Amino acid sequence: MRIPFDELLERTRTLFEENGLQPEYAKITAEAICTASLRGTDSHGIRLIPHYIRAIKAGRIEAGVSFDFRKTSLSTGILDARHGMAHAAVARAMDYATELAAEAGSGFVAVKNSNHCGAMAYYALRAAEKGMIGLAFTNATAKVKVFNATRPFFGINPLCVAAPMEGEEPFCYDAAPTVMSNNKVKMVAEAGQELPEWVAADKAGKMTRDPALSKMLLPLGGELGGYKGYGMAMVADIFSSLLSGMPNGLQVSSMYPSDGGDLDKKRYLGQFVGAIRIDLFEEASVFKERMRKTAEEVRNLNREDPEREVMIPGDPEKKVAEKRRREGIELSGELQDLFGI
Amino acid sequence: MRIPFDELLERTRTLFEENGLQPEYAKITAEAICTASLRGTDSHGIRLIPHYIRAIKAGRIEAGVSFDFRKTSLSTGILDARHGMAHAAVARAMDYATELAAEAGSGFVAVKNSNHCGAMAYYALRAAEKGMIGLAFTNATAKVKVFNATRPFFGINPLCVAAPMEGEEPFCYDAAPTVMSNNKVKMVAEAGQELPEWVAADKAGKMTRDPALSKMLLPLGGELGGYKGYGMAMVADIFSSLLSGMPNGLQVSSMYPSDGGDLDKKRYLGQFVGAIRIDLFEEASVFKERMRKTAEEVRNLNREDPEREVMIPGDPEKKVAEKRRREGIELSGELQDLFGI
Repeated sequence: MRIPFDELLERTRTLFEENGLQPEYAKITAEAICTASLRGTDSHGIRLIPHYIRAIKAGRIEAGVSFDFRKTSLSTGILDARHGMAHAAVARAMDYATELAAEAGSGFVAVKNSNHCGAMAYYALRAAEKGMIGLAFTNATAKVKVFNATRPFFGINPLCVAAPMEGEEPFCYDAAPTVMSNNKVKMVAEAGQELPEWVAADKAGKMTRDPALSKMLLPLGGELGGYKGYGMAMVADIFSSLLSGMPNGLQVSSMYPSDGGDLDKKRYLGQFVGAIRIDLFEEASVFKERMRKTAEEVRNLNREDPEREVMIPGDPEKKVAEKRRREGIELSGELQDLFGI
Repeated sequence: MRIPFDELLERTRTLFEENGLQPEYAKITAEAICTASLRGTDSHGIRLIPHYIRAIKAGRIEAGVSFDFRKTSLSTGILDARHGMAHAAVARAMDYATELAAEAGSGFVAVKNSNHCGAMAYYALRAAEKGMIGLAFTNATAKVKVFNATRPFFGINPLCVAAPMEGEEPFCYDAAPTVMSNNKVKMVAEAGQELPEWVAADKAGKMTRDPALSKMLLPLGGELGGYKGYGMAMVADIFSSLLSGMPNGLQVSSMYPSDGGDLDKKRYLGQFVGAIRIDLFEEASVFKERMRKTAEEVRNLNREDPEREVMIPGDPEKKVAEKRRREGIELSGELQDLFGI
């Protein structure tokens, strides 16, 4: 069944409140999770609600905590998520970052003792909606093959940047340093198809086209340029693990019990978010108008495949969001049970 | 012939002073250019000295200007390079950024009315040498094929991040959003070899393996993931062109007369640099030690190709720098003439 976005939001908020989150955190968490599904990032959206609820019940996520924020300079701070719900923690961290930026020009907040926070776009967009450039990093379980090594070391750590645009939702680049997400590889496996080359490797680190054998993902850039994607994963690890003082590389904990991630163990993940004011460099209206003009110029370029549009980062998500806002969002049977509908 | 690095530095400094740069700017410019060659980034190093001198003589680069810096908030500022030598301008911008960061925690400076500034590593490393995380972006002539379009729109705009490490030179990730640089494609052409797949496209935007036909580069990520490399080029364009108020996309001027870039015309390029203090998030000594430990763990992973080491970003450059510091740096005949040796 499909339900309207607002109903989904309300049901999710209620569910998290019933599971111990304080009202403000439950509201932000619902918004972060449901927005990911609204925008088509299904791997990071409501699909994970049952997982999060299990993690709360098992003790990994401390539903009832209050986060602790400490300002460490005019433009920096540390948010201790105290093992609470990470979506609320990272969103609050970005709120502090934009508050710091409002006063000091830019603001950066490291999040420690955190959990899986879903799609990064929501946090960077939070800054863009206030007219600033937003940046967001998270760490994740080791999964990206190291260039010229036989195993992964860094996670599929995304780089996310958002910026406001005139007349439409903000620009948002939210990309993992691999060609495909792990979830897409699983979808290829379920469809009984082969993987393209340079997407995944087997347990020995050898490139494989059989999705069932995939044990790690190859970094963006393939045979020759893979050191670039691998390096991006390391950059994100530095920001999110080393600045937050959390475990990094092979020490990053696993999410799922199937990978050895016990639901009663704390994850100790780290995130890093930042906001930079635009109006201190360029008139905000000029910047936003140039963003719009740039997007239009690119979208109007001649197409290679005439059946597919030329888009800028974030366009596919905007299209899905528009459609789902109109048509509602599909609920799995598991979610219907959780919501009691 | 080969000459020692220090002699190269001194000769380059003198040459730029003789061509009208004030002593301080000549010194920084020489250091930026010669360091690129020391580190093996030959495409962006001393090879370009004759080009820069021609651009000064023809009027594109205003050798004698003084840059104008304006602080716009506690952590932000704008540096007007006034069409002077960009290496000195971007380095000075990073000095201002680190000064802002020293007071406010982080610092960001947009550079306007600028020129080609060579390799970005030098600027980000300038922050890392002061114990901070350094970031540097530049724009460049449209050269990266837009995903699903038939032509380029954004330049081969690099993302560069540097961070200090215990016991060795800083970490430095300096990567363009394409598999190969334009210069490497030219080297493949000169060697009469074929290009790998998903590196370059011909004038119609069709992938080509013939380097002689290459008119644009394909974005990192190839057939399926190319939207990620293309998006990175757009992100760098937003920072370096739109925040600095400089032309972007197709309006970015060309460097060489062969591409229509007249040497008597100003380039109006933009850059963006930033510095973030580490000690406001984590004890600096702990951060640097964890950087060293992470690097060692990665370097010691089992190798896929046993003949090649497993490295982290910046390692190849450190190795070349060590060798060239010992053995000296090769000068072309053109450079020998310029230096009068």
